[in-house]
Amino acid sequence: MNLTLTSGKKIKVKQGVSILESLKRHGIFLTSSCGGKGTCGKCKIIVRSGDVESRSHIKLSRKEVHEGYALACMTSPVGDILIDIPKESTLTVEGKIVTSKSKDLLALFHSTGADIDPLSERIVLKLPAPSLDDNISDLERLKKELFANGLGCLRVPFRFMSNLARTVREKNWEITLSAIHSEDCYEIINIFPGDRKIPQYGIAVDIGTTTIVVYLIDLSDGHLIDVASIYNSQIRFGDDVITRIVNATENKEMGDLHRAVISDINELITILISNHKLDIDSIDSIVVSGNTTMIHFFLGLDPSAIREEPYIPTANTFPLSHAGELGIKVNRNVPVYSFPCVASYVGGDIVSGVLAVGMNKKEELSIFIDIGTNGEIVLGNSEWLVAAACSAGPCFEGSGMKHGMRATDGAIEGVKINPGTFEVEVKVIGDDTKPTGICGSGMIDAIAEMFLTGILNQKGKLQKNISDRVREGEDGLEFVVFFGESRDIVLAEPDIENIIRAKAAIYAGFSILLKEAGFTFDDVHKVYIAGGFGKFLDIEKSIILGLLPELPKDKFEYMGNTSIAGAYLCTLSRKLRGEAEEISRKMTYLELSVSRSFMDEYVSGLFIPHTNIEAFPGVKELTKK
Amino acid sequence: MNLTLTSGKKIKVKQGVSILESLKRHGIFLTSSCGGKGTCGKCKIIVRSGDVESRSHIKLSRKEVHEGYALACMTSPVGDILIDIPKESTLTVEGKIVTSKSKDLLALFHSTGADIDPLSERIVLKLPAPSLDDNISDLERLKKELFANGLGCLRVPFRFMSNLARTVREKNWEITLSAIHSEDCYEIINIFPGDRKIPQYGIAVDIGTTTIVVYLIDLSDGHLIDVASIYNSQIRFGDDVITRIVNATENKEMGDLHRAVISDINELITILISNHKLDIDSIDSIVVSGNTTMIHFFLGLDPSAIREEPYIPTANTFPLSHAGELGIKVNRNVPVYSFPCVASYVGGDIVSGVLAVGMNKKEELSIFIDIGTNGEIVLGNSEWLVAAACSAGPCFEGSGMKHGMRATDGAIEGVKINPGTFEVEVKVIGDDTKPTGICGSGMIDAIAEMFLTGILNQKGKLQKNISDRVREGEDGLEFVVFFGESRDIVLAEPDIENIIRAKAAIYAGFSILLKEAGFTFDDVHKVYIAGGFGKFLDIEKSIILGLLPELPKDKFEYMGNTSIAGAYLCTLSRKLRGEAEEISRKMTYLELSVSRSFMDEYVSGLFIPHTNIEAFPGVKELTKK
Repeated sequence: MNLTLTSGKKIKVKQGVSILESLKRHGIFLTSSCGGKGTCGKCKIIVRSGDVESRSHIKLSRKEVHEGYALACMTSPVGDILIDIPKESTLTVEGKIVTSKSKDLLALFHSTGADIDPLSERIVLKLPAPSLDDNISDLERLKKELFANGLGCLRVPFRFMSNLARTVREKNWEITLSAIHSEDCYEIINIFPGDRKIPQYGIAVDIGTTTIVVYLIDLSDGHLIDVASIYNSQIRFGDDVITRIVNATENKEMGDLHRAVISDINELITILISNHKLDIDSIDSIVVSGNTTMIHFFLGLDPSAIREEPYIPTANTFPLSHAGELGIKVNRNVPVYSFPCVASYVGGDIVSGVLAVGMNKKEELSIFIDIGTNGEIVLGNSEWLVAAACSAGPCFEGSGMKHGMRATDGAIEGVKINPGTFEVEVKVIGDDTKPTGICGSGMIDAIAEMFLTGILNQKGKLQKNISDRVREGEDGLEFVVFFGESRDIVLAEPDIENIIRAKAAIYAGFSILLKEAGFTFDDVHKVYIAGGFGKFLDIEKSIILGLLPELPKDKFEYMGNTSIAGAYLCTLSRKLRGEAEEISRKMTYLELSVSRSFMDEYVSGLFIPHTNIEAFPGVKELTKK
Repeated sequence: MNLTLTSGKKIKVKQGVSILESLKRHGIFLTSSCGGKGTCGKCKIIVRSGDVESRSHIKLSRKEVHEGYALACMTSPVGDILIDIPKESTLTVEGKIVTSKSKDLLALFHSTGADIDPLSERIVLKLPAPSLDDNISDLERLKKELFANGLGCLRVPFRFMSNLARTVREKNWEITLSAIHSEDCYEIINIFPGDRKIPQYGIAVDIGTTTIVVYLIDLSDGHLIDVASIYNSQIRFGDDVITRIVNATENKEMGDLHRAVISDINELITILISNHKLDIDSIDSIVVSGNTTMIHFFLGLDPSAIREEPYIPTANTFPLSHAGELGIKVNRNVPVYSFPCVASYVGGDIVSGVLAVGMNKKEELSIFIDIGTNGEIVLGNSEWLVAAACSAGPCFEGSGMKHGMRATDGAIEGVKINPGTFEVEVKVIGDDTKPTGICGSGMIDAIAEMFLTGILNQKGKLQKNISDRVREGEDGLEFVVFFGESRDIVLAEPDIENIIRAKAAIYAGFSILLKEAGFTFDDVHKVYIAGGFGKFLDIEKSIILGLLPELPKDKFEYMGNTSIAGAYLCTLSRKLRGEAEEISRKMTYLELSVSRSFMDEYVSGLFIPHTNIEAFPGVKELTKK
């Protein structure tokens, strides 16, 4: 039987096979954070004609069911059907999270004072041709020439020897070596016949629990050529790292989790390479940042001990690996550098972030906070660094939220509520784009505004009868942020509770870290904020929500995705990779999960902005108005 | 249709598929040095009943054809058939070339003064279990414990990290590391849970062009447990290295040649492991000796430049590789050490031989000669070593000779001819075994005796009418060494010419090396002879033949297979592996193929014993009698 899309595309489908699955087999991907279990409600389709069987409507409103909405994962065709895929259900890889400007990144790189010195170097050599009087072997000839060029020792991994004889002869004894420099020695990672000095590109990857971002970088000048990103398809094994580790361990899905992330990265690399018509052999290095669990999955390391006390990863620093052994589809010998981690819950993404914001170089005390799927906080300066992790959950990245989404086109990223009329003004990412969901910065704005306008009380409860935007929804009371044509975008009470728990955990983290180190908020010179909130984060609103402490606004700096920025830096410079390793060694990890005072602080944070309103004099003042 | 063996075994066969191929598919291997091209005549079968089609009888005598003999490679069944496989056609792996006595080898090892220090070491560690206060990663824990044990630096190859978490926890934090020591650092080659210190075995391999020998060695005490050997099945790609390189290069059979040698080694290892009921994980190291081309094929390196002036190998020293990347069926991480070579035609087998005979340790001048498929000669002492290769061909190993065979059961290894009656007395390897062919030492004996008794003249021509043992055969005149029931064993004139060419090349090699170094035969203190001649080599007869120079008998020492002996030594000791590398660095290679004086010397040697009979006064005396 046939499934036809309103766009005209027609595909073959089978009774009993979910529409989600059938679409996937034909290369059409829908968002589906639960992995097809019918619990996230994101893979909505509209059945325009034909008969279907649906196993569940649990995540659809009555109105939606009436209008023909169905969950693609729970629905299979009975005969020929015509369906429509709403824009919000479409998984796109093109959408950029934070459109990092190449010139900003270059400026950041130049500010470090480092030279371009990537993971691998290309060396062009012209070997003297052999003769009866000069009959040393090809390998010795190569080593001798390198020595003559002052390149010292050279390790040739066994796998390069099989074709050495042919390669050196192919272009009349001219060859290009791609080599990495490690332990005072070169190690060959590729040998090309002839002069292949340029072009040479690097790939930087940030494996977020929710989102994967890939940068394509020109290694000759550090220029960022392009960016691609995608939801981490491990999401189908769970929204958070713990659920994924459980699936990997107890359900023996380790291989699937590893392959999921590798396949995501391959998809992004393929798009970048084909968009820019690159030769795959011009990709010469890969640098990967991510939290400890993500790096474990990426490298195929058993993460099971991470989730159980005393929370031990297989490793915090990782040997260099190569693309072939991981399944990354570039030349199999391309080296893959994985960021060093600190502990099970303070990973390479945090080390990368600290490197990118440069707090390890500053004498003054700073705080770095990365609000991704988890919330990790680092306190310190050029002398010392102490870090902690607080389970914030992935709500700021849109996961687990009814209408949450990443900060891509169509996301409401700013919200203003008129205190008199309760009318809502929204700011949407993308020119003239209709909103399809709400991203982290939009949520913060919305909740802060709802609190200031009295729609929400201090406990995070919606006030009925104050506006017709507060209404009874399927999950209890909800606030309509945007009245849409096909669907309204709402924040329901469970969403709001989610946000409040997250912000309470983060604020408690700040407090405990400072307390343990013997400082107060006033001692803090800078607060660097990283995360996938969108292009901007409203500091004032974040303070009103109680996510950030009440400090002078100029102490805060919103940095965007610092994990990928640090990976970018390390793609370019050996000195900076060394610095990342130094940061990981220097950083002390504080385990909050067993701290009683953390729990006390957390509970105090479950109010807007905080039980201790005296810590927020400005907000107190505002609420009086 | 069916093929039944007279032994009763029945197999399915097909018209159009050669009987050789059909037997092979059912695990029955016949000797076939030409690889089924109908040119070596070794895969004889006897068709007892049924119809067959034969494409060629070219290597069979009329008598044989009449008796039902056929070449299995050239013959395919037309209907059901009953066949017999003569013993001489059966390929067996059990036959030992030189039954090396464990106590002799142990004595050799102890004479070097080296300690047992194999390629890999097993280290049992009891790690402290982690806690919240001691929450470093598994990898750091391992490194810390090694450091505490004074084991310094440790490299953990990436491939070991995936299961590290499980392995360390499996036996309550007790683990056994198998590690190699390289460049002042340990590199892990295996990690086992619990205490797996013993047993630990090593494999030593000699890849001869014609024969492959494998030793199984107990690494705890150096005891040789067992030996297995087999014809190198690369023979089907040619008897000599040049033909094989041509096949590898021009016919793109490189992969087949690599797989052939790996499969032979796997077969021998499997037999040894199953005979001794060993756990495959107790095999911890492999040391491989062989000539430069054989090591290239073994490692899968392109050998094409070896055969063309200026004769350049890919490498003379090889990085350590591991079993998995070569396809050797032991634990994939077992390290494989390949002997360093000197030049394209002086390989690791010669370095290994020099190490085994110890000439690199002696102040006096010695000669080492290895007569295998090629003939390599080394001259020198503890100060210097110079080597040359002379194309002797594989005749002394039985290849290319009508009734030639390896020195295994059934081989005539000694021949005595009564000068009055011309009756022949033969000595056969194996108790009460009927002769099935003639091995190297038997050929030397036979030709020397034929010369002394006047059956053969100085030019190597058989004298008709002197005895009824000299007769017209299918390849011209032949001498019947043994009248057999089913077939006679003969040396035909082409065989004799073969031997004379080989001995002339070797003697010319001696002469040129001495001349170039400024010495004469009288300066030589010892002549060490290696090769697959059989259990003994008659020095006197070898001098009569003109293979060896006429020197006092006590200057000669027959050493058997020194290539495998050196591999045995290096399996046990790092010091000796270092010594092998020193030998390979120190040895100067002299290219004979372009030397005019070599050609002159060679031509002078094409007589028995030599054109210059004055160099053989003893032989001259004998022939006068």
